[in-house]
Amino acid sequence: MKKHNFSAGPAILPASVIQEAAQGILDFNGSGLSILEVSHRGAAFMAVMDEAIELVKELLDLPADYEVMFLSGGASTQFFMAPMNLIDESDTACYVDTGTWASKAIKEAKAFGKIEVLASSKADNYTHIPQGFDVPSYAKYLHLTSNNTIYGTQYHWWPDTQVPIVCDMSSDIFSRPVDISRFGLIYAGAQKNMGAAGVTLVVVKKDLLGTVHRHLPAMLDYRLHIENGSMYNTPPVYAVYIAMLTMRWIKANGGMRQMEQLNQRKAQLLYDEIDANPCFIGTTRKEDRSLMNVTFLAAKPEWEQPFLDACKAAGCVDLKGHRSVGGFRASIYNAMPLEGVQALVDVMREFAKREQ
Amino acid sequence: MKKHNFSAGPAILPASVIQEAAQGILDFNGSGLSILEVSHRGAAFMAVMDEAIELVKELLDLPADYEVMFLSGGASTQFFMAPMNLIDESDTACYVDTGTWASKAIKEAKAFGKIEVLASSKADNYTHIPQGFDVPSYAKYLHLTSNNTIYGTQYHWWPDTQVPIVCDMSSDIFSRPVDISRFGLIYAGAQKNMGAAGVTLVVVKKDLLGTVHRHLPAMLDYRLHIENGSMYNTPPVYAVYIAMLTMRWIKANGGMRQMEQLNQRKAQLLYDEIDANPCFIGTTRKEDRSLMNVTFLAAKPEWEQPFLDACKAAGCVDLKGHRSVGGFRASIYNAMPLEGVQALVDVMREFAKREQ
Repeated sequence: MKKHNFSAGPAILPASVIQEAAQGILDFNGSGLSILEVSHRGAAFMAVMDEAIELVKELLDLPADYEVMFLSGGASTQFFMAPMNLIDESDTACYVDTGTWASKAIKEAKAFGKIEVLASSKADNYTHIPQGFDVPSYAKYLHLTSNNTIYGTQYHWWPDTQVPIVCDMSSDIFSRPVDISRFGLIYAGAQKNMGAAGVTLVVVKKDLLGTVHRHLPAMLDYRLHIENGSMYNTPPVYAVYIAMLTMRWIKANGGMRQMEQLNQRKAQLLYDEIDANPCFIGTTRKEDRSLMNVTFLAAKPEWEQPFLDACKAAGCVDLKGHRSVGGFRASIYNAMPLEGVQALVDVMREFAKREQ
Repeated sequence: MKKHNFSAGPAILPASVIQEAAQGILDFNGSGLSILEVSHRGAAFMAVMDEAIELVKELLDLPADYEVMFLSGGASTQFFMAPMNLIDESDTACYVDTGTWASKAIKEAKAFGKIEVLASSKADNYTHIPQGFDVPSYAKYLHLTSNNTIYGTQYHWWPDTQVPIVCDMSSDIFSRPVDISRFGLIYAGAQKNMGAAGVTLVVVKKDLLGTVHRHLPAMLDYRLHIENGSMYNTPPVYAVYIAMLTMRWIKANGGMRQMEQLNQRKAQLLYDEIDANPCFIGTTRKEDRSLMNVTFLAAKPEWEQPFLDACKAAGCVDLKGHRSVGGFRASIYNAMPLEGVQALVDVMREFAKREQ
């Protein structure tokens, strides 16, 4: 039976990427060697890294004053590495608290400067994106979490400010066009929209770097990674390869505009069903609904397990909501085809027929 | 033509591991999903992480007061993370400088405490392991690099000291039995003897942790990773899987004693040829020769390229020495079979017949 993978991350990859990924393990580019065992300084892998960096530039339409890095350690490492590289102890950075990951970013940043939390939706269990906050002009940056995987909310607007935005885009990178000039730094773990776990994309506007006075260990200094083309030390070779293959797939499938259109169609299909189906209730404010992670509850708690069972029977897997929210979460990243969402909607309709 | 992969790292993997690694990409444990796209919190991957940790404990014969972590960022991250977790600014740690990686470790450590370099073989271009140094009892640890990939030297003894040894074993982990009670902390990037690039093994004696007073970002705090079973954030799933498969292979092939015997036979075969063959010259002091990275020069510089060409024609690849040493380097890690080394020795003999 075909599986429809709704995992929040590591998450579904395009079927063609999985085939190429397996082929590269058995024989990388006809070299007679596996990509797992070739030198990262060899021409074959250098070409992969170069193409990965070029694809980021192309997909994000990056101006020349931005740099691209592929690093290790996940977004959780960026939570402290970004402030460490961008602010001194006496500087102020502003944050908006929209969920678990945003609040972890706030906690980690506090060791490196003055952190002001401009707004939070915590009191409402993060069911919406706060609005109406002002960004003080003395802030060195404003940190946002563009999509909140656990709570199913997403920014569909950006604050009107001259302060550079630092943005955790782990769960919606490459899912829609973004005006990059609004951002000073973007980071994203690969394992949702751009590949497998093990590599993190960082994009930074060059002139933000080199202003801090603290000691930076080599591996925590963005400038060193930029100078070395993300090859200061052995990079996570295979994870970079999968990211490159995934970005190639995004490009071949129409780039970010096409991704956005498909993502809107998929999300609309699912949210329409949630709103129409008496067995289910959406958990987030409608205007802040995520196109990536669709969170909803069973109208009666006793329906929760039977619905998950019905999903499983139809091949729809990993739909259990995060423990802090409960209910269900359907993660429908770029690689989830419309048929996958339709399969889930079909289960919801069947379930309603049976239970009503 | 069969390739014999002498790459220094990322390096040769057992053929059976490569087959399983590809299978896991296409269908992980019969789940109908790729290991690249399953949740790291799911039972299937949790079992992989648990088995990987158990295999480390078994292969290293770890006492109960040691902990195992799988982290990101390579040994280069451990260069600063180890001192950050083990010494305060007023503490002293001692280092021995045996090459490029040792000296990078020294440089990174200096930001976190008083660093004493007890001995260095730099003046001799790192062609031997320094001896006859005393380790002061006030040192919180002694840092060694057990095998020096670039220079082809390896410790075949350990300093007689009560001070805990912190050891970078990136290029000889699991290649021979080690009396773990001599060590306080061991770290190793996976991409030489235990898998593919993208994950780093850290083994630590628990009582060394929790003594420092500085702020540690979450991702840089060993204790947090231990508490969370290396799952504080999304781990590098696939790299952990390959490490687990490689350790399974080591165990199935007789464990560390068997690895050591095979590694000794392979190294002996190659060093004997270097010593007997008039076309080649070994670069390191004989008693410090590495069983992992065999470095040698052509007796006449004009032989260098023709010999590399002859190797390539015989399927022996990635034999060029590191740019800081020149000549040749044959990396013959656990996964290199005796036939691979024999193939290289055959090329050396043919070359001598032709050129002499």
